[in-house]
Amino acid sequence: MNYRIIRYVSGVIVLLEGLFLLFPALVSLVYAEYPDMGVFLGLAAVYTLFGFLMIRKKPQQQAFFAKEGFVMVALSWIVLSVLGALPFVLSGAIPSFTDALFETVSGFTTTGASILTDALPNGMLLRYGMLFWRSFTHWIGGMGVLVFMMALLPMAGGQGMYMMQAESTGPAVSKLVPSIRKTAALLYLIYFVMTVVQFVLLITVGKMPIFDAICSSMGTAGTGGFGVTSASFACYSTEAQAITTIFMVLFGINFNAYFLLLRRRFKEAFKMQEVRWYLFIYVGLTAVVIANLTAMGQLIGGDFWQTVHHAFFQTASVMTTTGYATVDFAVWPQAAMMLMCLLMFIGACAGSTGGGVKVSRLMLYVKYAASGFSRMLHPRRVKVLKMDGKAVGSDTFRALHVFLFCYVAIFIVSTIVLAFDSVGYDLETNATATLATLNNIGPGLGAVGPTGNFAAYSDVSKWMMCFNMLAGRLEIFPILLFFIPATWKK
Amino acid sequence: MNYRIIRYVSGVIVLLEGLFLLFPALVSLVYAEYPDMGVFLGLAAVYTLFGFLMIRKKPQQQAFFAKEGFVMVALSWIVLSVLGALPFVLSGAIPSFTDALFETVSGFTTTGASILTDALPNGMLLRYGMLFWRSFTHWIGGMGVLVFMMALLPMAGGQGMYMMQAESTGPAVSKLVPSIRKTAALLYLIYFVMTVVQFVLLITVGKMPIFDAICSSMGTAGTGGFGVTSASFACYSTEAQAITTIFMVLFGINFNAYFLLLRRRFKEAFKMQEVRWYLFIYVGLTAVVIANLTAMGQLIGGDFWQTVHHAFFQTASVMTTTGYATVDFAVWPQAAMMLMCLLMFIGACAGSTGGGVKVSRLMLYVKYAASGFSRMLHPRRVKVLKMDGKAVGSDTFRALHVFLFCYVAIFIVSTIVLAFDSVGYDLETNATATLATLNNIGPGLGAVGPTGNFAAYSDVSKWMMCFNMLAGRLEIFPILLFFIPATWKK
Repeated sequence: MNYRIIRYVSGVIVLLEGLFLLFPALVSLVYAEYPDMGVFLGLAAVYTLFGFLMIRKKPQQQAFFAKEGFVMVALSWIVLSVLGALPFVLSGAIPSFTDALFETVSGFTTTGASILTDALPNGMLLRYGMLFWRSFTHWIGGMGVLVFMMALLPMAGGQGMYMMQAESTGPAVSKLVPSIRKTAALLYLIYFVMTVVQFVLLITVGKMPIFDAICSSMGTAGTGGFGVTSASFACYSTEAQAITTIFMVLFGINFNAYFLLLRRRFKEAFKMQEVRWYLFIYVGLTAVVIANLTAMGQLIGGDFWQTVHHAFFQTASVMTTTGYATVDFAVWPQAAMMLMCLLMFIGACAGSTGGGVKVSRLMLYVKYAASGFSRMLHPRRVKVLKMDGKAVGSDTFRALHVFLFCYVAIFIVSTIVLAFDSVGYDLETNATATLATLNNIGPGLGAVGPTGNFAAYSDVSKWMMCFNMLAGRLEIFPILLFFIPATWKK
Repeated sequence: MNYRIIRYVSGVIVLLEGLFLLFPALVSLVYAEYPDMGVFLGLAAVYTLFGFLMIRKKPQQQAFFAKEGFVMVALSWIVLSVLGALPFVLSGAIPSFTDALFETVSGFTTTGASILTDALPNGMLLRYGMLFWRSFTHWIGGMGVLVFMMALLPMAGGQGMYMMQAESTGPAVSKLVPSIRKTAALLYLIYFVMTVVQFVLLITVGKMPIFDAICSSMGTAGTGGFGVTSASFACYSTEAQAITTIFMVLFGINFNAYFLLLRRRFKEAFKMQEVRWYLFIYVGLTAVVIANLTAMGQLIGGDFWQTVHHAFFQTASVMTTTGYATVDFAVWPQAAMMLMCLLMFIGACAGSTGGGVKVSRLMLYVKYAASGFSRMLHPRRVKVLKMDGKAVGSDTFRALHVFLFCYVAIFIVSTIVLAFDSVGYDLETNATATLATLNNIGPGLGAVGPTGNFAAYSDVSKWMMCFNMLAGRLEIFPILLFFIPATWKK
């Protein structure tokens, strides 16, 4: 294990976090929240100083392997979360460290599950600076902090790829351009521009207050889902909701598609199988949800077009694992609710900021199963499995199977751990709390539904869910490898 | 597709079913239920006649391939179920064909899920002949009707193995002795002797009425779970419950172990990894259930030893997918209930009469995942995966992955289909109804818990669950292949 490079990368993360804190400090200044500003600035100073000390000595041996890549990514996210939770604790906004950590992990992993129960007298969930920080963590976590680091820092050799693979979503990651640094920078550029476009549309067309628009567009971009009021998205205009629907769907698309569009390779962009499946599943299942709501006489607001509007918003929110809510889908009929759960499982595209199992994994599984059946019928016929015309290697499939196994195992273990909680929630709540955290969605059903929250769970359950959120965001392997002893053996 | 051999095998099944019906006819005679006896005898005559006509012309070409093997197994079980349902319909015991089919599929697949709601005035669920037939289907289905056929009929070539593989449980089936016919006969002999031993113990030590003991031992042997009264096993003596606990566990063990014991290869028998894991999981999780019940102050009957007794009974019943009940575990604390769900998923050993995913599949998955992690840490180290000292081939793993995919897919589809049911049951009921049928357990939780039943579901849902039960018993592939068009193409 190359501990020096691990120390170095952790140092960069600490330093970056110090710099990130300057933004909420500025917000606190604008809203005259001086004690909060003090906390942000103080921590920023400490983190920056420590970060500098840690990276002062550059490691001579910069080479590292997949193992170190996994460990660095897991450690970076843990460090990021722990340090990111301190502003909430020190400012008294969220006094319990476990709660603050839960909220911060939920932020960075773009989950959006919250332990906040009451709004302040002005209807906001927290003071402005704290709210901004909460939403800012979504934006940082969406594209990934190590990707950000790689966009800034030149890394020797091609090993940055290990980290990029470990931090990005989906079964396979490819460089868009030959240089990792340029790939990372390009991804962040697309990400930044799209966020700004949404922000501008929200304040102009959507008539949203500027602060709400900033936080909401960061939450949409990262597919996070933290709201600024306890009403989530119900209190904004229909236009703002519609814009957000579109942007949720856009941020759930594989960013490779945008890269292809930028390069004017339109044909390839529109032919991407995953994007087609993604849009097909989204529109298809939403249509069934609308049909079900109509058939069961549960039209939202008693109106068909309102139902269409809110159904498209909710399914986009759930499928991209954003977690914003305009209506409480926990009161929908069973079938519609089950389809929402199915969308939660599926999730967004690989290479997007969304969570879940990912459409491309689903596709690969379907193709694998179909070829398995074909092998049973014709044992001697051997077919090569392809995606977008390229053969998919056996390594990808092995990772896929191990992923599914771990995913199901974590799901079962977490649901059982939550069942041991003395709060005594039922199966529906515990299973969807697991799903909502493991897939980085935010709200589940039952007591953790769109109108509920995660506050009542015990600390043990909250730690379990922090693990779920990190495992979900980093797609299980880095965080699981980090915690098994074999990784640390020589 | 060799249609002649398919017709021939189906003919044998029809003939055998005709002969099977003579047993309940005898029971009806003993209990003076003459109209029922007439129904059984009439159908027996018709089936036997038709069966003879179908097998009159032996197919010249007896060779067939895996594809035909799957189709034959699926078709045999469908024929068996449809014909087996007619006595219930014609006698008026269960007037609805869908209900009768559900009950019969539940019987043959050794599920034990029932649509019967009310007991007769004498406390029995049905008349004696009908009850006997219901439990007899468990016994036939437990070891498999095609295995039975192969024990009787000499099959040309070694192709019977295809059917044996398709009908037996678990990821890999091996012949115990070189001849398939002798292997099948040996399995049925062990099965028969164990059933008789349990029966004798139940009437002597357990002081159970003879009729109840016959039905209960057949239900235990097949790990089915149909009771004769609506009280299931609660109304019998503690001794009878304890005996049944032991026999449920025994019938959940891989029958290869008994074969090894018969051959005095004790060391090998006691070293079988799957059996060790099975017993370890059984005892371990039962201990946790007992601890949880104790900690939550929910001792059964207020007594620790009673709790131990009933916990061991219930976990054995659930893990072996039998489904008998002495207490209603749906009122247990959440954690204990979740552990019961976990046991439902895991199921019994491969090569036993029990259902579920099977301990050996779980073992193979765990080994596969562990080796996957090891590959991530040490990309160049290649390990051969072994079970009981033998290398496990990539074909076995491919089948395993396709199995898991299909299993999860059926689980999700079925839960969604049940959610569309106008009966409007909640997630807990629908998900565990799926689990209870797909894993051939019997009772689930909620409205289909140990004290509930499946009567209120619509016909569509019941057909879905019939599919689940058949898919579960035949381990998905035969029944799924039967229904996909590619199988029927030239």
